[in-house]
Amino acid sequence: MVRWRYAACVKLRDLGEFGLIDRIERAVRKSGRTRGVAVGIGDDAAVLRPPPGEDWVVTTDAAIEGVHFRWQTQSPRCVGRRALVASLSDLAAMGARPLGFVVALAAPPDLALRAFDGLLAGMLQEAETHRCPLVGGNISRAQQTAISITAQGSVERGRALLRSKARPGDRIFVTGTLGGAALEVARAAAGQGRVRRVPVPRLRAGRALARSAGIGACIDISDGLLADLDHLLERSGCSAELDRSLAPRPPRFDAACRRLGLDPIELATSGGEDDELLFAVRPAGPTGAQLQRRLGVPVAEIGRVLNKRARARGEGGWRHF
Amino acid sequence: MVRWRYAACVKLRDLGEFGLIDRIERAVRKSGRTRGVAVGIGDDAAVLRPPPGEDWVVTTDAAIEGVHFRWQTQSPRCVGRRALVASLSDLAAMGARPLGFVVALAAPPDLALRAFDGLLAGMLQEAETHRCPLVGGNISRAQQTAISITAQGSVERGRALLRSKARPGDRIFVTGTLGGAALEVARAAAGQGRVRRVPVPRLRAGRALARSAGIGACIDISDGLLADLDHLLERSGCSAELDRSLAPRPPRFDAACRRLGLDPIELATSGGEDDELLFAVRPAGPTGAQLQRRLGVPVAEIGRVLNKRARARGEGGWRHF
Repeated sequence: MVRWRYAACVKLRDLGEFGLIDRIERAVRKSGRTRGVAVGIGDDAAVLRPPPGEDWVVTTDAAIEGVHFRWQTQSPRCVGRRALVASLSDLAAMGARPLGFVVALAAPPDLALRAFDGLLAGMLQEAETHRCPLVGGNISRAQQTAISITAQGSVERGRALLRSKARPGDRIFVTGTLGGAALEVARAAAGQGRVRRVPVPRLRAGRALARSAGIGACIDISDGLLADLDHLLERSGCSAELDRSLAPRPPRFDAACRRLGLDPIELATSGGEDDELLFAVRPAGPTGAQLQRRLGVPVAEIGRVLNKRARARGEGGWRHF
Repeated sequence: MVRWRYAACVKLRDLGEFGLIDRIERAVRKSGRTRGVAVGIGDDAAVLRPPPGEDWVVTTDAAIEGVHFRWQTQSPRCVGRRALVASLSDLAAMGARPLGFVVALAAPPDLALRAFDGLLAGMLQEAETHRCPLVGGNISRAQQTAISITAQGSVERGRALLRSKARPGDRIFVTGTLGGAALEVARAAAGQGRVRRVPVPRLRAGRALARSAGIGACIDISDGLLADLDHLLERSGCSAELDRSLAPRPPRFDAACRRLGLDPIELATSGGEDDELLFAVRPAGPTGAQLQRRLGVPVAEIGRVLNKRARARGEGGWRHF
């Protein structure tokens, strides 16, 4: 168990606010890549220069100590990576290309500098992988560590994928596999290892969907398949029939669940943070095989959109209050 | 003294996450105005459509309970207003026009719904005044209430005002008056009234500066005149001579300071959160009178940019760690 806040080591307060900002700037400069960034860290605001005529896509998300992550079960680098990936996944669900992100970081003054460095390294690692540089931020003290990320992207004008565009008759697809993130959390809670898995945001798949004809609505699965499907259906004013047993699961997932006394279908349909895309395809739209080729990722058809709203809101999945 | 967290009243947890999101959406719909917003609240991300050919300006800021505000001395509406104004002031300092903002709100489940409503109403009031609609957000639980706002704006390509453009010989100006915010906080700390003052972000003045010839660097004064001047000088690689006694102060300010045993010059030059603009003007640039006419706000000349870096960083003003 790692206690980042109480170990005898260098703390955030030893560097001071401006020392920490300098540290971030130096780390960002080392990681390079500033195409589309006219002004990065260090001014009152960042200035981005996106391709002309594109729409601007903005999403914000937070990762809070004790709520979204625990130092005991996850390394700072992993926390930082997942924090940025959650926002990149929202950009993916809109079909957008990342341009840059800002972070509002709050942390206790007695947090170990090593934890801060790990968070930063994790964010910058994903930033580099997905070409979404850190362009600005804010730092302040707080009782809990909290990372609020706002990611900016762009998409061809009018082509953003929306939750509201599903229509009765659409086929419902999901990318990749579900339940892996929830299984790892359940294992960590049972004392079997730490949380190390960082999903790959489906940016390429999202952009391919935004360019395809015959695609209805799209959402990323962060709260769980059932909860996020429900968000999509509510925005579209539809219901759906779903074969929960078709929810695609990772290899050896079902057996691993049973060893922990968990229902694999339940975990795959209600567990969150897989960051896969859930989307609706028109009856005359591409087939599963065509989608798989275009998106460059396995897809599974799991149900169909129906006419009326029936299910209650927010069934399954994670709620904050 | 108001204890928003323990009074016998409706709490955030009584509404639940989705109840709160619905509440925000309804409030935003009522406040209208969506020019330039293609997709607002309710999808994975917001979609903005800035004027063609403009640069995008992005800034993030946080207001945290017990650090930036106290429920005991400030109403929730005032906290919400100030939180958005702080970000709008950063857009002003870049010469940008606001387009919209996202908010990551963290709060304890036992926070009174009235406090939440007040925060929201305060943000939406400033949003409407300055035409910067709430376009998206995130809500989660935490030990302290924290409001992280990321504001988006746009500015004519290449015209953003930067901290780094001051040159030796530039005259240093400041808009409005300084110290009013710090005096009110000092009074509230002495038990004399609550914090009610909400600065007016200098958006119009910032845009006029961005369009003017002969303007060097610009920054908004959030940490205090001396601290923010130092940020500007550091980015520009210069030093400055400053007549601190020229720092413009509100009417009756000096007498009010002395009654509290405070040094008026000290408070006006080191107190933060006035959200005025501090900027450098080339020797051949506009005069004070010309600036005052163009900016539509009083300006005071308080010093001159010099050749070399001399002062230590971050002298005076507020630091977080």
